[in-house]
Amino acid sequence: MLMRQTLDFLLYHWLKVDRLSARERFSEHSRETFDAVLDTCERIAREKFAPFNRLADTEEPRFDGERVHLPQATHEALAAYVESGMLAAAQDAEHGGLQLPCVIEMAANCFFSKASVAMGGYAMLTNGNANLLMAHGTPVQREVFAMNEFSGRWFGTMCLSEPQAGSSLSDVATRAEPDGADFEADPLGPRYRLTGNKMWISGGEHEITENIVHLVLAKIPGPDGKPLPGTKGISLFIVPKHLVDTDGRLTGERNDVALAGLNHKLGYRGTTNCLLNFGEGRQLPGGRPGAIGYLVGKPGEGLRCMFHMMNEARIGVGLGAVMLGYAGYEASLDYARQRPQGRPMTAAGKDASQPQRPIIEHADVKRMLLAQKSYVEGGLALELFCARLVDEQHTGTPEEAAAARLLLDVLIPIAKSWPSEWCLEANSLAIQVLGGYGYTRDFPVEQYWRDNRLNMIHEGTHGIQALDLLGRKVVMDGGQALMALAGRISDTAQRAGQVPGLAEAANELGAALAAVGGATKKAWSTGEPEEALANATPYLQAFGHTVLAWIWLEVVLALEGTDLESDFAQGKRAAQRYFFAYELPKIHAWLGVVARREALTREMRDAWF
Amino acid sequence: MLMRQTLDFLLYHWLKVDRLSARERFSEHSRETFDAVLDTCERIAREKFAPFNRLADTEEPRFDGERVHLPQATHEALAAYVESGMLAAAQDAEHGGLQLPCVIEMAANCFFSKASVAMGGYAMLTNGNANLLMAHGTPVQREVFAMNEFSGRWFGTMCLSEPQAGSSLSDVATRAEPDGADFEADPLGPRYRLTGNKMWISGGEHEITENIVHLVLAKIPGPDGKPLPGTKGISLFIVPKHLVDTDGRLTGERNDVALAGLNHKLGYRGTTNCLLNFGEGRQLPGGRPGAIGYLVGKPGEGLRCMFHMMNEARIGVGLGAVMLGYAGYEASLDYARQRPQGRPMTAAGKDASQPQRPIIEHADVKRMLLAQKSYVEGGLALELFCARLVDEQHTGTPEEAAAARLLLDVLIPIAKSWPSEWCLEANSLAIQVLGGYGYTRDFPVEQYWRDNRLNMIHEGTHGIQALDLLGRKVVMDGGQALMALAGRISDTAQRAGQVPGLAEAANELGAALAAVGGATKKAWSTGEPEEALANATPYLQAFGHTVLAWIWLEVVLALEGTDLESDFAQGKRAAQRYFFAYELPKIHAWLGVVARREALTREMRDAWF
Repeated sequence: MLMRQTLDFLLYHWLKVDRLSARERFSEHSRETFDAVLDTCERIAREKFAPFNRLADTEEPRFDGERVHLPQATHEALAAYVESGMLAAAQDAEHGGLQLPCVIEMAANCFFSKASVAMGGYAMLTNGNANLLMAHGTPVQREVFAMNEFSGRWFGTMCLSEPQAGSSLSDVATRAEPDGADFEADPLGPRYRLTGNKMWISGGEHEITENIVHLVLAKIPGPDGKPLPGTKGISLFIVPKHLVDTDGRLTGERNDVALAGLNHKLGYRGTTNCLLNFGEGRQLPGGRPGAIGYLVGKPGEGLRCMFHMMNEARIGVGLGAVMLGYAGYEASLDYARQRPQGRPMTAAGKDASQPQRPIIEHADVKRMLLAQKSYVEGGLALELFCARLVDEQHTGTPEEAAAARLLLDVLIPIAKSWPSEWCLEANSLAIQVLGGYGYTRDFPVEQYWRDNRLNMIHEGTHGIQALDLLGRKVVMDGGQALMALAGRISDTAQRAGQVPGLAEAANELGAALAAVGGATKKAWSTGEPEEALANATPYLQAFGHTVLAWIWLEVVLALEGTDLESDFAQGKRAAQRYFFAYELPKIHAWLGVVARREALTREMRDAWF
Repeated sequence: MLMRQTLDFLLYHWLKVDRLSARERFSEHSRETFDAVLDTCERIAREKFAPFNRLADTEEPRFDGERVHLPQATHEALAAYVESGMLAAAQDAEHGGLQLPCVIEMAANCFFSKASVAMGGYAMLTNGNANLLMAHGTPVQREVFAMNEFSGRWFGTMCLSEPQAGSSLSDVATRAEPDGADFEADPLGPRYRLTGNKMWISGGEHEITENIVHLVLAKIPGPDGKPLPGTKGISLFIVPKHLVDTDGRLTGERNDVALAGLNHKLGYRGTTNCLLNFGEGRQLPGGRPGAIGYLVGKPGEGLRCMFHMMNEARIGVGLGAVMLGYAGYEASLDYARQRPQGRPMTAAGKDASQPQRPIIEHADVKRMLLAQKSYVEGGLALELFCARLVDEQHTGTPEEAAAARLLLDVLIPIAKSWPSEWCLEANSLAIQVLGGYGYTRDFPVEQYWRDNRLNMIHEGTHGIQALDLLGRKVVMDGGQALMALAGRISDTAQRAGQVPGLAEAANELGAALAAVGGATKKAWSTGEPEEALANATPYLQAFGHTVLAWIWLEVVLALEGTDLESDFAQGKRAAQRYFFAYELPKIHAWLGVVARREALTREMRDAWF
């Protein structure tokens, strides 16, 4: 089954995305224009990305002390991406954008992530950067920076982490001081001088574009010269690698931003990842050290601005994880169909003079393929569902928007974390299907596994997602968001209960939901965050599996009215059966410790390890 | 806690290994001599192996068309290993061996596996090869080949797999034909000419030693010129890289064995892995093509000979997986103690002006460290327990030997598979503890994870272990082996039931055992292998977790009589608690499909994927 077939089914048959064209924002669109975008992206990904994915891994970015070198193929792939207009996929037509729904933009980007997640990384970051500026920048900032990013003339980055402050943004130490008495008069925005170090900056240095627009979190010192502790003192700045004028022309002056080093990673090697030094004085813009940065939004609102696009960013990471899983699934399925090895377990199978059979005929290989199918197709459905909610939030009625926002609140931690964990497992299963061959670099599956290992770490670690879910999302506003999701899940279970063959699954989903709800209550029954959150990660896992079971039931319900005997429908039903039989029962082990507020991890002492 | 402390506790306090010196074979030994061996190995591993583990990965073996090049450090590390005498650790003193118990040999080799599993690989293979020859070779074969391996003058390999026959040994196609009319008169053993290709041969080519002794499975054609189909026609041959005389001198003639290529792997890169061509005519020993091989044992007994040492080999693979897990655990524990990040979840923790705290204080980090501790210390205990059983089998009374053999029958698939899966998970958790740093090649944890991924593949894949366990071991001889293990587990549970604080765990272990027993019966209730074995892998997983729970209860019972308030004892209790709270409950999800003979994987069709 081609991914495109599943994608089309999910988009049009399940999510009714074509109906979005009834909304004013998308009125120029139709299924035809959506399909044209998908076709174009699928083609570019096949021609310009996929053939060079291994190359992007083996020819790792190299810093010669002056410049960073990337394979020519990366330059060409990204040129083709720029050419497609996808950098401005969701932007207004009047700004040269395609004005596409989020769900179509995400679906189209699937092809690039599956073909080469690391090469695609530069574009995803640039898109997020420019979208943020459109939301929070001044008209001049939008015109100068965002527009030149949408056109692909410049690329962008997000600079949050620092060597001493990874997940803990309150400890950001980069300083931003007003640049001269007239600092507020700069047409590009209030002008500051930044000093500090930023770590883990993807796309932080390269020669793909003539300039790089860094978005940097930094603290403006208070009257006492000290930055405010905590996240409240954090502001957001545009720090271009090369200084520019208000017409977007390079002034010829290099900003005081220096590459301190490239990180050499396990995977995802095609995307440069950098330690950047701001204001160390290697360059002297305006005759003195300090990286020039232009304030975005108001002082102290840096995190709010940066996280404005967080939902989309986290859906994007989740979808990247899904696509790595999908790529491995396809590779191992292809291998399993072609590789003869062993014979059936029947009496006839004992005759060694008979030719060997393709390994896809063995139950255990089918188990490994079904697991992958249930993870990657389920993950794809989840991410598209979330992207569809983003559209609902942006273009639905106020009621629809509010309902979508509630669901997104609880679903985003799952959309980010679940594929990071389970599509990584899918990649491991793909290696296993290929056996020794899967362990060699002659096949792509080992690279997918290495690439995917990043996704549990960046854009909020697994542990951070778990705290976000159990510590905030399910309890805020009196648990409204959780109740909204529970309502949706119950509704699905009720509908499934009426469908022949799905009643048992409907019951199991209902029971899982009740178990999650019960554990949530028990976790918080003492009201002590330390007690509730000691088992936030197992909670996240159980919650995720329950959500995926729900998504799978949704998907097979959408088959109703189609030919249920088709290979397509049978495959979807089998994957849903797999998920309910082999995966969903795992939640009880995870919820057990949550519900009884297992204190072991809190009681454990350093000296006992 | 240093690994040595745990190792000493397991060896002497739990397994009473010092008592082995009461047996005639080990009468020259004592705790002092055992400790001296452990000390020596620990030192050599620390000085000669550990510092070069990364180098062995980055300076991957390179074939220049003529020779294979390895880092000088690998040569030196192995020279030190040879010097230690460990190649002949278990051999008779009269043959220059150390006459050590298997359990001490395994414990001592731990240090090398933890320091550099890939560099150690050559030695483990040579040891297995020579031991096999001591068991099945003629006196001349032992003297010429095995002795020169024990001395480290030559290294050895095991050549089983072929490109078209990985796990399916019945499909071995390498042919062995009598070499001349006088083929039976060769003093080195009946002489054959071999032609065929062998794949995945670790240590198959290198320049560490002046010669390489390949042990090769091949088929002797019957009177009709055709090899017997199936495994019955498989024989075993010694095929030296360079031909030798009966005094062990190289004759100067190169055998017709050629390196067709090195495999470029995900991990384990320090061990060469080769495709070898036998008899392709690149060399012409005796003036004509065909690799000269000397029959070991009788024709048709190749598999029996090869698998004679299988238990030890599989314990060795399991222990290698454990040690990779252990190395990652130590690295991430060290990091977690030193890395400041974030603050406590209490009210005081909200004060961002306070310094950040070491991440080991966070519950979720402790959870990840406890998981690793429970996997790697539990795995170590399991492997040592199995090694101790091997000693029981070899030097116990006939009753003790028979009892040990039964237990080993069911435990070996777990000893091989369980650490391959869970100590790999430990390595992933180690990466997670380090966050972004763990994803870089500046820290060792990503290499451990890559190296460990091999262990579910070689020496019998996970799926093969599962079929061996559920398809053979638990049912053979009327289920005697399973009953023997169940007896041991029940006994442990009963003892634990009497100990304050362990009663609940004892009950949980009893319930787990009953669940495994019940699922075993139900899986086989129709007597159809296809039905029973469709879920062999989930069965293997549940069985493994139950065994590990038992091992953990054994370990904490062994603490009785020691200072239970010591950090050491508290740590062991915490790991046991972790395993029972977070891990053991997972078995029910796995056993569910086994017990109801879930038919999904059998019913799934190729076209539905």
